[in-house]
Amino acid sequence: MGAEQRTDDTARLETFADGVMAIAITLLILDVRVPRVGSSLHSSLAAEWPSYVAFVVSFLTIGIIWVNHHHMFKLIERTTHAFLMLNVVFLMTICFLPFPTALVAAYVRNPDTRSLATAVYGGTMTAIAIMFNLVWRYAGTGHRLLVPGISDEALAKMNRDYLAGPVAYFAVTVIAFIEPYVSLAIVAALCVYWLLPGTGPRAEVVGRSATSGPEEEPGR
Amino acid sequence: MGAEQRTDDTARLETFADGVMAIAITLLILDVRVPRVGSSLHSSLAAEWPSYVAFVVSFLTIGIIWVNHHHMFKLIERTTHAFLMLNVVFLMTICFLPFPTALVAAYVRNPDTRSLATAVYGGTMTAIAIMFNLVWRYAGTGHRLLVPGISDEALAKMNRDYLAGPVAYFAVTVIAFIEPYVSLAIVAALCVYWLLPGTGPRAEVVGRSATSGPEEEPGR
Amino acid sequence: MGAEQRTDDTARLETFADGVMAIAITLLILDVRVPRVGSSLHSSLAAEWPSYVAFVVSFLTIGIIWVNHHHMFKLIERTTHAFLMLNVVFLMTICFLPFPTALVAAYVRNPDTRSLATAVYGGTMTAIAIMFNLVWRYAGTGHRLLVPGISDEALAKMNRDYLAGPVAYFAVTVIAFIEPYVSLAIVAALCVYWLLPGTGPRAEVVGRSATSGPEEEPGR
Amino acid sequence: MGAEQRTDDTARLETFADGVMAIAITLLILDVRVPRVGSSLHSSLAAEWPSYVAFVVSFLTIGIIWVNHHHMFKLIERTTHAFLMLNVVFLMTICFLPFPTALVAAYVRNPDTRSLATAVYGGTMTAIAIMFNLVWRYAGTGHRLLVPGISDEALAKMNRDYLAGPVAYFAVTVIAFIEPYVSLAIVAALCVYWLLPGTGPRAEVVGRSATSGPEEEPGR
Repeated sequence: MGAEQRTDDTARLETFADGVMAIAITLLILDVRVPRVGSSLHSSLAAEWPSYVAFVVSFLTIGIIWVNHHHMFKLIERTTHAFLMLNVVFLMTICFLPFPTALVAAYVRNPDTRSLATAVYGGTMTAIAIMFNLVWRYAGTGHRLLVPGISDEALAKMNRDYLAGPVAYFAVTVIAFIEPYVSLAIVAALCVYWLLPGTGPRAEVVGRSATSGPEEEPGR
Repeated sequence: MGAEQRTDDTARLETFADGVMAIAITLLILDVRVPRVGSSLHSSLAAEWPSYVAFVVSFLTIGIIWVNHHHMFKLIERTTHAFLMLNVVFLMTICFLPFPTALVAAYVRNPDTRSLATAVYGGTMTAIAIMFNLVWRYAGTGHRLLVPGISDEALAKMNRDYLAGPVAYFAVTVIAFIEPYVSLAIVAALCVYWLLPGTGPRAEVVGRSATSGPEEEPGR
Repeated sequence: MGAEQRTDDTARLETFADGVMAIAITLLILDVRVPRVGSSLHSSLAAEWPSYVAFVVSFLTIGIIWVNHHHMFKLIERTTHAFLMLNVVFLMTICFLPFPTALVAAYVRNPDTRSLATAVYGGTMTAIAIMFNLVWRYAGTGHRLLVPGISDEALAKMNRDYLAGPVAYFAVTVIAFIEPYVSLAIVAALCVYWLLPGTGPRAEVVGRSATSGPEEEPGR
Repeated sequence: MGAEQRTDDTARLETFADGVMAIAITLLILDVRVPRVGSSLHSSLAAEWPSYVAFVVSFLTIGIIWVNHHHMFKLIERTTHAFLMLNVVFLMTICFLPFPTALVAAYVRNPDTRSLATAVYGGTMTAIAIMFNLVWRYAGTGHRLLVPGISDEALAKMNRDYLAGPVAYFAVTVIAFIEPYVSLAIVAALCVYWLLPGTGPRAEVVGRSATSGPEEEPGR
């Protein structure tokens, strides 16, 4: 019963987090607006390109976060009140993302507003990445909420790997004030990079496969 | 089979409640609006501060309610028709929250409308807290729907602890007519207070750990 | 494995249906609009009463449908392609409900438009109730998808009880053209009636308890 | 433990995918707008027919995709990082659908814009169908992520059957530039065709029943 109880303990958190991420990711389409009837549809649709790019980049970013959250929770078997609350704050930063996404889509073409909009976007990404790390560090420190059998080396590697997110997005935010298009290009590039197989902070899977053997390799 | 049947009995209610709370919490961002293109972005974004504050406070409040709902349902193993219906009404009060949140964000800067908007906000919070108590009281009275092994003392303590919500939010609603900013500050303070570890109506966890032993301590 | 396979077979349908109903019920708040800044807030909020009433009635109606769907699926253990598709069409009618809800809220105060808006509302309710019956009849006919142990008498009683929905809502739709306010009052009254314990089409629970014994009585 | 671990491995992906599809399908109603108060309600509602048709066709299409996704995942028991990412991109194309749906609803009555709007709609459908095939091919190639017991013949048949989607929707997109109404009629006809029992790409169920025996026939 002990084992099942613990599994169940994270199950409802995962369901709630999945629900919130699924909704936040889907709401992004609400900011891709149909042009007003009466205008030339070709040119109106073409002029909307920042909306499409912003939709794709934010969608993939939340998708990657979801995949990583999924990987992380394979290693977590318990929750505490503080851990639930940290997750709530983490989800809050994700739910905020549709706002800066729409902001960038609306203001990126104007040189006067491009930097600020991009910086708000990068700042939100930074906040998401920091919260992701806090959630992980809370669970991982002293193996507090983890499943048994994860080595200290695997843990240390994951701590390092996950740090790439906040560092990269903080850089993106700073660059937004100097070269906003470069800043946005880096966000898009990070997104493509993490989409590729064999990249990104998936060290926990190493820790996991160390405990469960090579026959689960496809499950990574 | 009996035990599993009962578990399953609350499972679908928890899934539905999680879904509704996940959506209500995510819809809050729809009321944080992108300023119209053409205005000064810096000042427009700065002027939107009530939207950001309202988003954060309402988000964290629903998050805390979700965590408490999660704790409460660890103690509940059965449902009845009336209990499902009580939960539907409880969820209705939560789903209503985006409306007064947007109302406060839009009207808090105007001294003529500040009190009324804040009172509607406080009144909705009071309604949520009352419904939360009714859900709990229905399940707890005479141990009607509870898992075995919860002492009468633990039950009485939880009944008392959960009462803090309606009392606090009713006070908030009354204060809204006198000092609306004080009223809002109390809502924000309650939210921060309940976020902290070791606070708030989590007495049920005490009841729970009494039945399952100290090895589950991290699961609290 | 056979039994688990079957359980799992309806599990994903229930999850999807719960998700769709949870979202449709939550989207209803989007049509309760914050009055424009500048108007008198007291009178604006008061003038919005049809929005609040429509929100409450539609919310409780979807909530009651969800509870009944929940009861129905306790008796169903298998799915077929046609059954999944019937459920998709059923969910489509539920997802349509926010539209006539907003229509009634906007047009009920004008005598020229009141009847039509109310009839569209009643017609949507009728369509939901018809689809609910089709879903049930498909599953129940010849015990096609049901768990074992339901008597033919219980089945026949459920068939009769569920018919109350389409009949009542068809009457509501017809009455909308004569006395729209009476029509709306009946919808609200049905909603309150089905909220009460011991009413409505819950005959299936009788069939269920017949198979699982009296110790599950609270689970009804 | 091995078997359960694998089941759990796809469970969270299915939950997330169900959530995203449930939300995308429900958001479609947001583009069926209530006419402005003041206009003639009869003629306004009648003039909105493209919105209703677009809602129904897109809703049923996502519903059919969900059913097929459900069937496909009965055959998949493992995930990989790349497979999760492919699913994220697949879900992105589904989440995009409300935009071209609203585009068609707004522009189909104008001969100048009808072709382009319809082509964007058909193009999105094509993208969804291509991603669906990529998800399946990734899982199926060399039986990479499949449950045991599926014959190569069943696999080859499914590969062929699923190809119908991209081919049909690509044709729809091309036809949009010549005869947009014909193009839309084909989308609607495909939707009705796949709703019918015994049609569409459900060959995998054949493969499944081959491994689990005839007593599960209703589960197809």
